[in-house]
Amino acid sequence: MTARGSGPLGVFDSGLGGLTVVRALRLALPSEPIIYLGDTARVPYGTRSAETVVRYARGCARLLIDRGIKALVVACNTVSAVALELLRAELDLPVIGVVEPGARTAVRAVEGQLGGTRVPRIGVLGTAGTVASGAYPRAVAQISTRYEVVALAAPLLVPLVEEGWLEGEVPRLVVRRYVEPLIDAGASVLVLGCTHYPLLGHLIAEEAERLAGRPIPVVDSAAATADAVREWTLEDRIPTAPEGIAGLELLVTDRPQTFAAVASRFLGEDVPEVSLVDLSPG
Amino acid sequence: MTARGSGPLGVFDSGLGGLTVVRALRLALPSEPIIYLGDTARVPYGTRSAETVVRYARGCARLLIDRGIKALVVACNTVSAVALELLRAELDLPVIGVVEPGARTAVRAVEGQLGGTRVPRIGVLGTAGTVASGAYPRAVAQISTRYEVVALAAPLLVPLVEEGWLEGEVPRLVVRRYVEPLIDAGASVLVLGCTHYPLLGHLIAEEAERLAGRPIPVVDSAAATADAVREWTLEDRIPTAPEGIAGLELLVTDRPQTFAAVASRFLGEDVPEVSLVDLSPG
Repeated sequence: MTARGSGPLGVFDSGLGGLTVVRALRLALPSEPIIYLGDTARVPYGTRSAETVVRYARGCARLLIDRGIKALVVACNTVSAVALELLRAELDLPVIGVVEPGARTAVRAVEGQLGGTRVPRIGVLGTAGTVASGAYPRAVAQISTRYEVVALAAPLLVPLVEEGWLEGEVPRLVVRRYVEPLIDAGASVLVLGCTHYPLLGHLIAEEAERLAGRPIPVVDSAAATADAVREWTLEDRIPTAPEGIAGLELLVTDRPQTFAAVASRFLGEDVPEVSLVDLSPG
Repeated sequence: MTARGSGPLGVFDSGLGGLTVVRALRLALPSEPIIYLGDTARVPYGTRSAETVVRYARGCARLLIDRGIKALVVACNTVSAVALELLRAELDLPVIGVVEPGARTAVRAVEGQLGGTRVPRIGVLGTAGTVASGAYPRAVAQISTRYEVVALAAPLLVPLVEEGWLEGEVPRLVVRRYVEPLIDAGASVLVLGCTHYPLLGHLIAEEAERLAGRPIPVVDSAAATADAVREWTLEDRIPTAPEGIAGLELLVTDRPQTFAAVASRFLGEDVPEVSLVDLSPG
């Protein structure tokens, strides 16, 4: 292990959504200090090309590494989908993404359903970038070649969450539009392939159950990712911090006040001061 | 006038929407060559802070000026709302935005309605950034202090347009959510304060008429802005190009193929090759 053992865990996302991962990390590893970066000046990443996402991800990682983190948690599905292998190759520290843990949880969920007349399928809702990357089918295939993945881009879910429009006819109809083709295609578990989606998780579960005629498990990668980080600490792949309740530092690239105002909705705790940082290269 | 007389008109927006302004310019001034820049790597601007929008706008303007434009058309309501005066002060060429021309058209529309029992109000739908800036109330007040402006942020309209979801129950309900408070507040004209919105203009007009019980004029700034540019050429504030059908050059900062695929929907003509440019500073 490097001398980074005493640094915080670094977590980043394009915006707010990754705070659901921070929340899960603080439950799983309460004594680990965390520094979170939301790239709110360039959010969303999910509609951008892989080349641009890679460029933005490198900038976020560099800023956190300059602050002395001991491990990097990529709390963004789009970055995890298109840039994780590259970040792992380039960076000299442990890097964990959200796609692999989510895929593992989904496989466990469908394994529990075996015994019916046909092999269950794994449905994935994600951003255009995540779906185009094929990252979920790849991650599932690395765990088991038994299960087919059907993935669908759901571009209106992020704006609905950011607008805070989480109840009522419009969110329900939008969710239905995206869930219906997955259930029709035989999905018997749904992976929320974007850190914003858990805030619409109740509607997604309700619509899926209504359409399928039975409960459909809905996988939120946040908890699975926190479990993966804890496993890595238990395996000494990430050094652990001393016991105690650890601090949380929040950084954004734009609009710290707006971020602070809505962050508690994601984080489930009071939000510390949010600092503005500059990610412009050069 | 400067030696820039032979250069093209430079037009920029955060993404695709400004192409509606390009379309109007090509109808109004067919012999003017145009170079268009869509900052698709950082779209949308409407949710960002004024400081960030100013920084992005400077970068776009600099790139177009380096290409020898003779005048700059800011085809983005958010930039026009928060950065136009600053661009005018900093840049040594004519700069036209979309807010002033739209406000002028709206005032003309309500003037035509005078004579009723109360003074008509001007309703504006825009991005969070445009509404927060107060640019429309300011622009209207400069024309006449007689009219009050009610402005509302409509953050889901851009994602609906970018998704191409322009018909059916969901777009109608979303439009209704934003139009209803404006009609309730007494708006008797609606300004589409974002270049994306004209693609939902039919639904906005239908819902406004249904709610108001009479037709409500809907102002699209694109034509008004093209008229303003033509006026400036007639007044020799912008030098004119020789007669003939002029070229159109399209630049974007991300995903040129995606841009090309949907641009014709905005532009109303076949789209020339789209080039990728880099706006990273430094």
